[in-house]
Amino acid sequence: MNRLSHVRIVLVGTTHPGNIGAAARAMKNMGLRDLTLVAPKVFPSGEATARASGADDILSEARVCRDLQEAIDDCALVVGASARLRTISWPQLDPRECAKQVTAGNTKTAILFGREHSGLTNEELERCHYLLHIPCDPDFSSLNVAAAVQIVAYELFLSTQKQAHTDNNGPALATAAEMESFYGHLERTLYDLRFLHERKPGPSVMRRLRRIFNRAMLEKKEIHLLRGILTAVQLRIRPPA
Amino acid sequence: MNRLSHVRIVLVGTTHPGNIGAAARAMKNMGLRDLTLVAPKVFPSGEATARASGADDILSEARVCRDLQEAIDDCALVVGASARLRTISWPQLDPRECAKQVTAGNTKTAILFGREHSGLTNEELERCHYLLHIPCDPDFSSLNVAAAVQIVAYELFLSTQKQAHTDNNGPALATAAEMESFYGHLERTLYDLRFLHERKPGPSVMRRLRRIFNRAMLEKKEIHLLRGILTAVQLRIRPPA
Repeated sequence: MNRLSHVRIVLVGTTHPGNIGAAARAMKNMGLRDLTLVAPKVFPSGEATARASGADDILSEARVCRDLQEAIDDCALVVGASARLRTISWPQLDPRECAKQVTAGNTKTAILFGREHSGLTNEELERCHYLLHIPCDPDFSSLNVAAAVQIVAYELFLSTQKQAHTDNNGPALATAAEMESFYGHLERTLYDLRFLHERKPGPSVMRRLRRIFNRAMLEKKEIHLLRGILTAVQLRIRPPA
Repeated sequence: MNRLSHVRIVLVGTTHPGNIGAAARAMKNMGLRDLTLVAPKVFPSGEATARASGADDILSEARVCRDLQEAIDDCALVVGASARLRTISWPQLDPRECAKQVTAGNTKTAILFGREHSGLTNEELERCHYLLHIPCDPDFSSLNVAAAVQIVAYELFLSTQKQAHTDNNGPALATAAEMESFYGHLERTLYDLRFLHERKPGPSVMRRLRRIFNRAMLEKKEIHLLRGILTAVQLRIRPPA
């Protein structure tokens, strides 16, 4: 039985196939199996297989997606690795806190690792419930992507070892797709309300609202409640025909 | 001031220069600088420099020794990484215990990492005060040497951080009084909307909404944003006088 079968490692826009192979090896060393690649530059590749060094089963089972949404659609917890300290503060975990949270239950989880040179885009980070920051020397803070996967995988493995099982079967959390629908509904409602308009467009307000609701880790039932309120607003403010 | 200046990473008999470069990068990310190479197969090497990716200063300062003894001569504590569980029982540490021990003082310390395929020889391990074992899946326990350096360096860095102070000056959170005002505003708005009414009174809905927003740990600024939305709703639905 694999204690980490609910955890998916998502590599976004990886340029060097060697890093994909090294990440696969790091995963297998630590009992992770679900590798998903979003728009890799080169894959499959002999270099990836060489660097996987025996973890080629992880590579051959890897799923390749065209965009991030496809990669995380079924996940209720999305964590994005980020080296930069953002001006907009987003809930942040270090690898140990992340491992604790991820292994506390069996919520389908995606952990995202970005491009070698530029990491994850702001838009991609906004899909995340948490940013994952690996503590390191601030003067040289760019970790190799496979090295970052290795550290996170190590903490996940340790965390499963530490926990004799805790069956934490809480209520079902909303999936990433359900969250996106909710945010779409919220944004349309704010435009209907003219809270958002041409002079005060959505992106920065929506980013702040996403932060709030991502942090709350909404349950499916809670999404229904909130969308019910949004629908009530829309019905009341609809201009007379 | 570098808290890890007494710690030397020793790579013994490394075959692939890329691993030397990746190890240098992993070290620099975590504030380690002293790299010593015992009989590397190829060094210096363009591949090492490429994989070091900005940590080439570590490579150019690296010392190359012909044998292990020369590399550890001035060290009072020697720790050897080992994947295998040895028949000969030797005092063993995991990376966290090792980091704790190494950073507790400033004893000159060498941490040894062996060859890609065969690790450290028994003779080399016998020079060590401790064996260092990285927890991992016993069915696939061979870590890449640079990945092993990365994990150990990460634990060393964390251990120095833990001793430093924790300044946790996040943005100001809303007070309990501000949260109560917000919930009052939210409830009035839901009555105005007729989302709540005599037949569907507030308490149970409000309890569920409180759960959501309490969990989110709202900041003061976020309360302002949410109340701004509530006010916009109230203005739009106010019945004509």
